Amino acid sequence: MDWYLCDEHLINKKTKTMSQTDNEQAAIPEGATQAPSEYFTGTAWIKMLVPPNDLTDCTVGDVTFEPGARNNWHTHPNGQILVVTAGTGYYQEQGQPIQVIQVGEAVNIAPEVVHWHGASPDSRFTHLAINPNVSKGGAVIWLQPVTDEEYLSKM
Amino acid sequence: MDWYLCDEHLINKKTKTMSQTDNEQAAIPEGATQAPSEYFTGTAWIKMLVPPNDLTDCTVGDVTFEPGARNNWHTHPNGQILVVTAGTGYYQEQGQPIQVIQVGEAVNIAPEVVHWHGASPDSRFTHLAINPNVSKGGAVIWLQPVTDEEYLSKM
Repeated sequence: MDWYLCDEHLINKKTKTMSQTDNEQAAIPEGATQAPSEYFTGTAWIKMLVPPNDLTDCTVGDVTFEPGARNNWHTHPNGQILVVTAGTGYYQEQGQPIQVIQVGEAVNIAPEVVHWHGASPDSRFTHLAINPNVSKGGAVIWLQPVTDEEYLSKM
Repeated sequence: MDWYLCDEHLINKKTKTMSQTDNEQAAIPEGATQAPSEYFTGTAWIKMLVPPNDLTDCTVGDVTFEPGARNNWHTHPNGQILVVTAGTGYYQEQGQPIQVIQVGEAVNIAPEVVHWHGASPDSRFTHLAINPNVSKGGAVIWLQPVTDEEYLSKM
């Protein structure tokens, strides 16, 4: 497998694993709700596939970002795994360049690492967000918005 | 959200969340390896997206079953979450009827529940398999194969 480490992150760079292409536009899931503008720039949609529960203490959310949309800088007390299911997105950790992430790639994010993710400027983008052990410290701690200057540093 | 409980399982029955249809055939991921015949009936392919790691202690695998293929009856010491990404599949827990699962649906499986999953007879089927806390007791305990009689009980 073609794995590489970026600081504390393990990113699986590989070819498509699902029957999708980067050019496909993900549908907005039925029942999704708009992500709170307090923590997102632009429009994003969230549908919980697995809400907080005692069985696995792990949640899974389906998050779709319109082109140019991204979440604020944030951390996860217990880490998070992203799995890209549609489109082309951006992932950045503090002090590092933006990384482009594609369908079938996963990002394994360590606890307490400051980062953000979102769509690239020209592609609607969907990832699953997997949060293990959410009963222990919560899922996310939100920080400041990603500025246009930060977001456009990839261009 | 349209949730229902089936014994200890929380299943999210909903419409498509990804830009795929049931009729699309998932591609076999590049670098996937064939699942061991000791624990699978028919042909299945496994690609680890997130291998065992210290960052989140959670693994994610992409599993594709050819039509008719299924894994053995088994349990997970720490539970498991399935997220369907392509095709139409079967999920069954011991003593319950087979349930049909579709793209965008998730199954949240409690620890120690005896169950199996696989493709329906006419559809290649792909799900993500998410295993939290794999350092605590391992990911899976394999049991006996699912017989043709058990598998065809849905027909």
